[in-house]
Amino acid sequence: MEKEIAPIMTEYWEKAEFPFHAIPKLADLRVAGGTVKGYGNPGLSITGSAIATAEVARVDASCSTFILVHSSLAMLTIALCGSEAQKQKYLPSLAQFRTVACWALTEPDYGSDASSLRTTATKVDGGWIVEGQKRWIGNSTFADVLVVFARNRTTNQINGFIVNKGAPGLKVTKIENKIGLRMVQNGDILLQKVFVPDEDRLPGVNSFQDTSKVLAVSRVMVAWQPIGIAMGVYDMCLRYLKERKQFGVPLAAFQINQEKLVRMLGNVQAMFLVGWRLCKLYESGKMTAGHASMGKAWITLRARETVSLGRELLGGNGILADFLVAKAFCDLEPIFTYEGTYDINSLVTGREVTGVAAFKPAALKQHSRM
Amino acid sequence: MEKEIAPIMTEYWEKAEFPFHAIPKLADLRVAGGTVKGYGNPGLSITGSAIATAEVARVDASCSTFILVHSSLAMLTIALCGSEAQKQKYLPSLAQFRTVACWALTEPDYGSDASSLRTTATKVDGGWIVEGQKRWIGNSTFADVLVVFARNRTTNQINGFIVNKGAPGLKVTKIENKIGLRMVQNGDILLQKVFVPDEDRLPGVNSFQDTSKVLAVSRVMVAWQPIGIAMGVYDMCLRYLKERKQFGVPLAAFQINQEKLVRMLGNVQAMFLVGWRLCKLYESGKMTAGHASMGKAWITLRARETVSLGRELLGGNGILADFLVAKAFCDLEPIFTYEGTYDINSLVTGREVTGVAAFKPAALKQHSRM
Amino acid sequence: MEKEIAPIMTEYWEKAEFPFHAIPKLADLRVAGGTVKGYGNPGLSITGSAIATAEVARVDASCSTFILVHSSLAMLTIALCGSEAQKQKYLPSLAQFRTVACWALTEPDYGSDASSLRTTATKVDGGWIVEGQKRWIGNSTFADVLVVFARNRTTNQINGFIVNKGAPGLKVTKIENKIGLRMVQNGDILLQKVFVPDEDRLPGVNSFQDTSKVLAVSRVMVAWQPIGIAMGVYDMCLRYLKERKQFGVPLAAFQINQEKLVRMLGNVQAMFLVGWRLCKLYESGKMTAGHASMGKAWITLRARETVSLGRELLGGNGILADFLVAKAFCDLEPIFTYEGTYDINSLVTGREVTGVAAFKPAALKQHSRM
Amino acid sequence: MEKEIAPIMTEYWEKAEFPFHAIPKLADLRVAGGTVKGYGNPGLSITGSAIATAEVARVDASCSTFILVHSSLAMLTIALCGSEAQKQKYLPSLAQFRTVACWALTEPDYGSDASSLRTTATKVDGGWIVEGQKRWIGNSTFADVLVVFARNRTTNQINGFIVNKGAPGLKVTKIENKIGLRMVQNGDILLQKVFVPDEDRLPGVNSFQDTSKVLAVSRVMVAWQPIGIAMGVYDMCLRYLKERKQFGVPLAAFQINQEKLVRMLGNVQAMFLVGWRLCKLYESGKMTAGHASMGKAWITLRARETVSLGRELLGGNGILADFLVAKAFCDLEPIFTYEGTYDINSLVTGREVTGVAAFKPAALKQHSRM
Repeated sequence: MEKEIAPIMTEYWEKAEFPFHAIPKLADLRVAGGTVKGYGNPGLSITGSAIATAEVARVDASCSTFILVHSSLAMLTIALCGSEAQKQKYLPSLAQFRTVACWALTEPDYGSDASSLRTTATKVDGGWIVEGQKRWIGNSTFADVLVVFARNRTTNQINGFIVNKGAPGLKVTKIENKIGLRMVQNGDILLQKVFVPDEDRLPGVNSFQDTSKVLAVSRVMVAWQPIGIAMGVYDMCLRYLKERKQFGVPLAAFQINQEKLVRMLGNVQAMFLVGWRLCKLYESGKMTAGHASMGKAWITLRARETVSLGRELLGGNGILADFLVAKAFCDLEPIFTYEGTYDINSLVTGREVTGVAAFKPAALKQHSRM
Repeated sequence: MEKEIAPIMTEYWEKAEFPFHAIPKLADLRVAGGTVKGYGNPGLSITGSAIATAEVARVDASCSTFILVHSSLAMLTIALCGSEAQKQKYLPSLAQFRTVACWALTEPDYGSDASSLRTTATKVDGGWIVEGQKRWIGNSTFADVLVVFARNRTTNQINGFIVNKGAPGLKVTKIENKIGLRMVQNGDILLQKVFVPDEDRLPGVNSFQDTSKVLAVSRVMVAWQPIGIAMGVYDMCLRYLKERKQFGVPLAAFQINQEKLVRMLGNVQAMFLVGWRLCKLYESGKMTAGHASMGKAWITLRARETVSLGRELLGGNGILADFLVAKAFCDLEPIFTYEGTYDINSLVTGREVTGVAAFKPAALKQHSRM
Repeated sequence: MEKEIAPIMTEYWEKAEFPFHAIPKLADLRVAGGTVKGYGNPGLSITGSAIATAEVARVDASCSTFILVHSSLAMLTIALCGSEAQKQKYLPSLAQFRTVACWALTEPDYGSDASSLRTTATKVDGGWIVEGQKRWIGNSTFADVLVVFARNRTTNQINGFIVNKGAPGLKVTKIENKIGLRMVQNGDILLQKVFVPDEDRLPGVNSFQDTSKVLAVSRVMVAWQPIGIAMGVYDMCLRYLKERKQFGVPLAAFQINQEKLVRMLGNVQAMFLVGWRLCKLYESGKMTAGHASMGKAWITLRARETVSLGRELLGGNGILADFLVAKAFCDLEPIFTYEGTYDINSLVTGREVTGVAAFKPAALKQHSRM
Repeated sequence: MEKEIAPIMTEYWEKAEFPFHAIPKLADLRVAGGTVKGYGNPGLSITGSAIATAEVARVDASCSTFILVHSSLAMLTIALCGSEAQKQKYLPSLAQFRTVACWALTEPDYGSDASSLRTTATKVDGGWIVEGQKRWIGNSTFADVLVVFARNRTTNQINGFIVNKGAPGLKVTKIENKIGLRMVQNGDILLQKVFVPDEDRLPGVNSFQDTSKVLAVSRVMVAWQPIGIAMGVYDMCLRYLKERKQFGVPLAAFQINQEKLVRMLGNVQAMFLVGWRLCKLYESGKMTAGHASMGKAWITLRARETVSLGRELLGGNGILADFLVAKAFCDLEPIFTYEGTYDINSLVTGREVTGVAAFKPAALKQHSRM
């Protein structure tokens, strides 16, 4: 990452383009496929995969998201919910980044409320007709393999499908003007009567609940992105404070700066430990949805404070993507929001600890005398 | 602003270019020159000029900064420190935006410690040789008129000069990769033996203190930028919460969202009142440097919380510049830092209220047994 | 306040007793009755009454609450909703603090949801039988005059009654172990078949809505308490930082301390302006419930930050009530919560700006697939 | 703790008295002496001692501080710096709480700057004359054994002495009016020509540095107090939210409350992990002063947020010591400040990571042109 990506990342981030030529370098990291075993995957432990996520994000969060969508969402769904034939067909190539995958759940009108999605799958001879819209789908503008979720019109349950690049009726438009993760190519997907043959339906996805095994892992991975980002920001700030002088002394000598730096370091350590604990819970089979949600929410909250402090410490240079911190400051924002916003993840955990779901407000007509 | 700038601002912000073709529209606002009287200037009250600043920033902070640098820094310096001939020569055209000005104080190694600047002015026959570097200078890549500060090598005091575009030895390089105020063109300026004729030396700048009258006004104007930004963000969020639904109800019905929105509104009102009080103090001749610094610092602190809350409220759409809030979130960062960082302004006020200056840490060799 | 109360307040605060002997001194302030005109009341403007509230709270918040309950709740209710005879009978003595009043709305099970109160009033010959419980009622352990709200069993609407000290069936128990406003005597009131003669029913209270005129004023007054508290804390901190030395220099010379002090001062100014604006809105007849609620919520939020910073600045002496700041730190907590908690006030304002009430969560049985 | 202390703690906290009759119950916990081995001490691991600290603090922080001062400061100093005879004489009785100890370092004018202390020790025949003042010394009003630090007038270095209760010239005055840890008896100590025989000088204390081994352990223990406090607060809040209803539904069903509760839980977990990591570093011999300081600072910062959120969640009952949360809210404040304030601990860590000490501001006469 430091050798191949760091020198080019400011340019691509600024242009909001993905450095396709660097994909073989990312492939060399041997992290695609993460915890998946067999089919050419690295079969890392979840802790190993988490550390790898952080190390990539420490240098560049866009690359980390690119890998995560490909690996911990799309590949993992195929590995956990796919047929043997699907695994053999898709995973080896994806593991080597010879092909790239994306994962299409969110829709224009269904973000936090993803399970209400309206894309439909209608059974026809030899396959399915998938129709609808998806939004925000990372990697989708160029992905070879699209894992798409749709509502089975017969069962009314969520099913999963593998759609291949170039399928008739499939149209992807790049989402422009993002302030963060600018190298990641998010797309608006339009599915107009896209035919998916029977063999590309994922047999293991028969309801929205079946996505939970995937989301359990991916949420842990997402939680490690801000850990990596915050580590990178801390390192840069420490260096900057020692090198840059004002009033004739290094910025490191200013009380106000030291307090910020130490608060950042305290956050980094705590975030790291919370992420590590999540991995241990997962590995021992004890991790609940609430654990993962709280971990993701809490870590992103502290990361947000951390990068904000870092931005301050760099002064004017803290607004230039060249100095890493400004880029990290921006990149954290989509992470704060995706894979369950901070608020939604808080409510997921809140439901688990209190036994009461509070997602949905009461009906609108209230009479209150307050 | 809403008619001419709003439709094009996302595009130019994304490209990090200034919409030069829109300058006549900005000229039509009749705000350049602000509080300056005569010479074709609008002669607004400081309150009037402040409200105008906020109203421009409410739509686009880059345009606001463009105007502020031109008007409240460069033009005001000429108006307050220039000779009659200089005023007559430069102000009418600047007031109509037929020419554009910038203001060059900050140097690569002297940001918070601006008064230590090292650019030099050496007296020669018929004028001065100005040599040195300036950094972060807004509008400088295309400005017709550059107000430049340099240290008189004879008196060792700071003097001010008007440098014209294209002066031999003057070179300006655009600073790329900014995360905020992307339409503003900041430049690194290189002055290599630039000759300034005697008539372009500003007779009223004979020490760094002479910049204080200008900075008093400009700091008030800068304080009104975040007020405008926050107003724009609040308005957008309120609209968004009422229109966007999740879980079948408008986002406005969620307790968590209402608390954020109301906190934003409370901040907006308080910021507005603090800014307004600053104007009243100024108008009654009672505003001190500490007042202006505290106002700027406090307002930007609350604005930062406000735009951050706004970013959360917009969810995924909060990371797209199209929806105004993401752009505002980014634009606030340079404002938090320029015209005195939050910390420096706090220490300026701290000195005023405690009588003790705390800018400069002790010498580095301390022996402590802690 | 500084002469009569400051010397004794730490002792009474520590003992959690009210300094009854000081009531004549408080009477001399001529603030009881506040904005009420005639009947021996001072007839202050709301701004005047607000400033008085702050000046009292600047020294001691318990005394401020004592006055506020007596004046802005109980006396104002009699003034706005009482008969001419009631006003003549009760107000002159209350205005001189020859008698003390309290105001009993909140019940053990109905705090934020006060309008649902269950104390009942049953019409009988010549009067009413009032039965129920009240909780948290300030001054009630010794009040001569208790304004009590109860639900009319015939109309099911809220009515108001004047209950006199020593009425048969009236029992008040002091609430012990408070951490803040320790001089204020809050009581649990038990009303067991308390007879109230017809002439002591307040004719102007015929529904919960009729309390709103009173609450509009009292909420403004409550908002000024934290303003006064914060001013007192700031003053003490500034003095302390200048006088106390560590490492051989005044604490005022430490960057970290200056930033805190200036943040406090910024908050104080902003709180003051928001409170002042509330008064002006009230005086021009434009103040809505949302304005008052937002003002109270926002001001207490910033006050909480302010006293917390003050507590830090005083180090060890920041935990001793003797140094004012610790006492203020504790006193702010009940204020953050009473007269509408921060959250409830946010939702009151939220309803006003969005048009959607979000007080009450949905029914508990939700099925969510998140 | 729950059986013996919980039923009486509100009463003693309110009275600001220590429940001496409960000392045998605390002795039964077998935690005094903590990590000390032999001499009747439990010889716990540091992790074991830390957990014990948290479990005591979870119910009552005053008891935790009482034990900590006795055990992790006084006893540990005797164990690490005492002679064999001193250990045999003092430790067995202290381990059983038959005698109680205190630890006197801080002076009225030297808090954060403790190493500059001015209490003196003058060599005389057969012993030492100790003279000076100490402040804030926990347990000192009744301690049998006082470990006192003084400056050796010959070497100018810090030495340590064991002073026995009732020593001529020793006078202790209780510090009144504390807002937190009210059961802990802090004293102002006056030492007027107190004679300490040679055998009561601690041979292992020959400079301020010799206290560092003790402070390394005690700072870890102090860091575990807020962890315990926060756990207790969280538990109480969860219970309260599930039991208390408003608007007809449990408080647990309110979005705003769930977010707060989950933020608290995230903090608790992170604090626990940071504390645990500190123990592991200590046990592996790798813990630095910076580690301990950052741990203490960071944990207290998050604990402060946690108890503040808890206070909000309990509404009015959040200001009564009876409900545990209010007491915890107050108890945290002295902990935030003692054993190195948040700021001082940040600067200790800051020095370690940057290599620059920033404790002491520059001399006061600065000329700045800002």
